[in-house]
Amino acid sequence: MEHRVDLVEIWRGGRLESVHAGHVVIANAAGEVVQSHGNAGAIIYPRSAVKMIQALPLIESGAAHAAGLTSEQLALSGASHRGAAIHTERVSAWLDELGLGEPDLRCGAHMPGNEAARNGLIRAEEEPCQIHNNCSGKHAGFLTLTKHLGAGPEYIEVDHPVQKAVREAFEEVTGRASPGYGIDGCSAPNFACRLDDLARGMARFAAAPGQSGRRPEAMVRIAEAMRTHPELISDEGAACTELMRACGGRVTIKGGAEGVYTAILPDLGLGVALKIADGASRAAEAAIAGVLAGLGVLDRASPAYQEHAEKKLVNCRGIAAAETRLAPALR
Amino acid sequence: MEHRVDLVEIWRGGRLESVHAGHVVIANAAGEVVQSHGNAGAIIYPRSAVKMIQALPLIESGAAHAAGLTSEQLALSGASHRGAAIHTERVSAWLDELGLGEPDLRCGAHMPGNEAARNGLIRAEEEPCQIHNNCSGKHAGFLTLTKHLGAGPEYIEVDHPVQKAVREAFEEVTGRASPGYGIDGCSAPNFACRLDDLARGMARFAAAPGQSGRRPEAMVRIAEAMRTHPELISDEGAACTELMRACGGRVTIKGGAEGVYTAILPDLGLGVALKIADGASRAAEAAIAGVLAGLGVLDRASPAYQEHAEKKLVNCRGIAAAETRLAPALR
Repeated sequence: MEHRVDLVEIWRGGRLESVHAGHVVIANAAGEVVQSHGNAGAIIYPRSAVKMIQALPLIESGAAHAAGLTSEQLALSGASHRGAAIHTERVSAWLDELGLGEPDLRCGAHMPGNEAARNGLIRAEEEPCQIHNNCSGKHAGFLTLTKHLGAGPEYIEVDHPVQKAVREAFEEVTGRASPGYGIDGCSAPNFACRLDDLARGMARFAAAPGQSGRRPEAMVRIAEAMRTHPELISDEGAACTELMRACGGRVTIKGGAEGVYTAILPDLGLGVALKIADGASRAAEAAIAGVLAGLGVLDRASPAYQEHAEKKLVNCRGIAAAETRLAPALR
Repeated sequence: MEHRVDLVEIWRGGRLESVHAGHVVIANAAGEVVQSHGNAGAIIYPRSAVKMIQALPLIESGAAHAAGLTSEQLALSGASHRGAAIHTERVSAWLDELGLGEPDLRCGAHMPGNEAARNGLIRAEEEPCQIHNNCSGKHAGFLTLTKHLGAGPEYIEVDHPVQKAVREAFEEVTGRASPGYGIDGCSAPNFACRLDDLARGMARFAAAPGQSGRRPEAMVRIAEAMRTHPELISDEGAACTELMRACGGRVTIKGGAEGVYTAILPDLGLGVALKIADGASRAAEAAIAGVLAGLGVLDRASPAYQEHAEKKLVNCRGIAAAETRLAPALR
């Protein structure tokens, strides 16, 4: 996290109250860094911002085809959803199709982020189940691949065939051996990488349309599925979903825990990766909106940009007491 | 926020994942900075970490005495409670005693932080009211002073006699004219100050016991009330409450939004103020625990220290996938 630069500011009463620093890299498919702020070589955990990479073995193995997965199911395999009914119904149905059930998941349970779903559980005095986990779509994808491979049930172990395939895809797409892994919130391994390598990997996704071969075709399929179904990737009103909509379906955008964001821009042949050093989501959302606006794919007049890059922080009586602003590096 | 230093780290899989920087000042009652990290002269909004100062006019005016306020009510005037029943019942009763009601508050409503209270509202399909606001005790104090002064109802306006008295007390305690104010989450003005001045102000509270006079006696009363009723200051399980308990009732500790903490240590005659530059609560809680341990008033073996300064971040399946650590400056 050395050499980070200020990216996002919080202002109150005409004075800087808080500031978020981090690193941003924009790369092209030739592997060149076309713009960066902070330390392009910072080693990060990309967390859920690499779900499009984690889904590649599902497609490339033939498992997705064999299971007849739809574009919606592929989108869910790349999602960090909020456990709304549109998410949990689809993941439940998917598990049914596999002849499996909630106990076969290994993601653990947490309260859904979607307010209606959460309040519904509280009113019914019910506990959340693993299908509510924001990663349950990714895990349904892992289970689909596990079944296809005839592998054992502990698909989140780092030496399981599913995670070995994920690591191989991850290292090929980022172009370098991972220096190691951590256990993610959903218990799957999360492989560390350099931020510039991650941006280059996203640029490879961006350059895939029109290329033939198993890898580029899988890249196109997952990236297209994700941007075609933005409401399945996070939720109504969430940054990831609303920014994809505001970009008119031309950009695949994915957030990850601890302040990570990636973006795939096929029209420009560019990939973006960013990490907020302190891990704040509010700053990662503002920074990705600022980067996308700077690249000309997001209108600064759009509600999604305003809501994230220049958010008015309204207090309990509706007074806009503070606001989010982009720091000079991203203006 | 210039010249901030790393204070708190998040580690995952043997690797630094995120880091929080900021400023810490420890001062004595002679006005000397005895220890600092980062920029001691940083201008900050102290937010709720100065509620003990905001309560001084309530006591010094004679309003608290005239209204017969108890130690519990004074504690609530310095609280950022989570809207649990023990908080809301006491604030409701206090408003009744004043012949006032919830509509007289000007703090606005928000969902209580206390889970049982929040779930209770959701199950009853009720909206939170202003008494649930974490600042409702401070506002009940403001209303008590307003009534005593015979002033108008808009007690949160910066030129209202209540806020003029708060500003005067604030500038006297911090020893310098405030460079300005912002509007807080509860709509009251929040006066900016230098972090070292805030630490000196906390040291004045620490040195007050044994001194005679209206100001030191008021300082002793509010600081004692707060550390005597830690469960009223935040909530069961909350950092502020649990750290005060773990310090054996010898330290008054108060957190504020956007990563601020203050502490008053009468036994050592010291005051502490800290600000996490990115505004993260998790880091402010870890940092204050680290500072208190460093000063010898908090046992590193205590659950409260372990829970905040060296917290195991357990994932959805109970795996301790990550952990909080103090950065070298605070070790």
